[in-house]
Amino acid sequence: MALPKNVLIREVGPRDGLQNESVWLDTMEKRTWIHLLEEAHLPYIEVTSFVHPKWVPALKDAKELAQSLNKKEDITYAALIPNEKGLAHFFEANLELGAMFISASETHNKKNMNRSIQETLPVIKQMTADLKAEGRQTRAYISTVFGCPYERQVPMDQVLRLTEQLLSFGIDEISLGDTIGEAHPLQVERRLDLLLERFPADKIALHFHDTKGMGLANIYTALKAGITMFDASSGGLGGCPYAPGSSGNVATEDVVHMLHKLGIETNVDLPRLIKAAEWIEAKVDRTLPSHCLRAFQSHTT
Amino acid sequence: MALPKNVLIREVGPRDGLQNESVWLDTMEKRTWIHLLEEAHLPYIEVTSFVHPKWVPALKDAKELAQSLNKKEDITYAALIPNEKGLAHFFEANLELGAMFISASETHNKKNMNRSIQETLPVIKQMTADLKAEGRQTRAYISTVFGCPYERQVPMDQVLRLTEQLLSFGIDEISLGDTIGEAHPLQVERRLDLLLERFPADKIALHFHDTKGMGLANIYTALKAGITMFDASSGGLGGCPYAPGSSGNVATEDVVHMLHKLGIETNVDLPRLIKAAEWIEAKVDRTLPSHCLRAFQSHTT
Repeated sequence: MALPKNVLIREVGPRDGLQNESVWLDTMEKRTWIHLLEEAHLPYIEVTSFVHPKWVPALKDAKELAQSLNKKEDITYAALIPNEKGLAHFFEANLELGAMFISASETHNKKNMNRSIQETLPVIKQMTADLKAEGRQTRAYISTVFGCPYERQVPMDQVLRLTEQLLSFGIDEISLGDTIGEAHPLQVERRLDLLLERFPADKIALHFHDTKGMGLANIYTALKAGITMFDASSGGLGGCPYAPGSSGNVATEDVVHMLHKLGIETNVDLPRLIKAAEWIEAKVDRTLPSHCLRAFQSHTT
Repeated sequence: MALPKNVLIREVGPRDGLQNESVWLDTMEKRTWIHLLEEAHLPYIEVTSFVHPKWVPALKDAKELAQSLNKKEDITYAALIPNEKGLAHFFEANLELGAMFISASETHNKKNMNRSIQETLPVIKQMTADLKAEGRQTRAYISTVFGCPYERQVPMDQVLRLTEQLLSFGIDEISLGDTIGEAHPLQVERRLDLLLERFPADKIALHFHDTKGMGLANIYTALKAGITMFDASSGGLGGCPYAPGSSGNVATEDVVHMLHKLGIETNVDLPRLIKAAEWIEAKVDRTLPSHCLRAFQSHTT
């Protein structure tokens, strides 16, 4: 299959990245980073999470941050919402897109959500209805699509069933997550074959980690299967706190750099993206895993 | 095209990795590292280089090191040879395979070899004849196959012409190098299409850098085109001293891990390979870019 002409990048750094860092960024600092990401023309920024601050203290200023943004018209500002309580805060914060989450494996869902998959689905269904009633866009994350840190293998039937149910709720896009960073390109090829037989490619985003170095190999494989939406994190910040050893969202700079090399448009400004990654790297004060951040820095020093 | 069943890994860390490090490993330390690589059952180890010590002081003990090895029967011990003077030392060192090198771009060849491509070819031809007369195996590196730090674009015609000439000398395998780490999978696909129309896949190895995170994406693409030999460096050590910003050979652990995930046999023992990478990382005393080194360490700490 030919490569797509355009790809949409979903920047998840300020939410998925920061929720896994021990560093505290105050609201003004978060705004600065988000501003740098806006300047890079990212079409979607997941700015925070309305998870209880007890679980993710790094994002405890979610509402205040969201309300303080000088939002640009052509950017979708999103936040994670775990439940109806989070939804109330989300509406007060006045963001455009609500992202919900569920796991494809029972154990991971229980550890992450403190309830079963069957108990999670009606919550998502109701939240989706509430979000749509208020004219908001919706997204659902399915975790552990390519493997689970507790159950290891995750049956593809379960992924297909969940995708079907979530789409039947009217959710705009589903992001399939390689939570433990173990997806390999042949598996991506096979799982997407089954998925895209049943569902339209423009409803599916992929969320890869670069834990074992296969992030871009998986994205290239997904592009060839027809996928046109990818999650990525500025600097490669983040992972999953409930999946041991799963550090490393694929870095937005690395994804955008490869896409441009392939002749695919993203509308993202790579030099400005590097600047945003440099800023957050200095702030968290550790070397981030982004390849292009290193490569482009080493050219100038 | 279906993936191959078996792949041969060419371990180049002790030569290509060390030649780019400022750290000095004495002969005994190099032997220790090579021994750890032998224990991982790598089928090929490029142990040193007979380049003049003035250019690569890190490998100035080339002959002494080679003579001190307790060689295993099922491993090919190789070394880089730049010219006839190096060849004399190589024969004294009694190794199995001599690797020669040339660039696909004139400027890079001049900076690297201090002579033109046309002047380099007869030297390689003569060395190949001498090596074969002594019953040795032969390999030739072509650098800058996917781009040059000085000339940027490198015409594929030049790569095809050089490959043809080198094979006509009777050289056993040609390693095509992504010297600046800018090859992308679509380019790999296109260049291999042209190459494998003319030459048998089992004569071609690929040598990728992971500078921009595309190392494994390029390898996966090459596997699908039918390539079954890949160069890699333990821990991801090394780069090219004449190509600014080109740090990062693809890490042997990352390559082997992906191949095994894909169901491809390498005969390499991954846990022992991680041990070898841990050892060299401690020795050079900086964080190496290998993904699997990090991932497997973080599982145990």
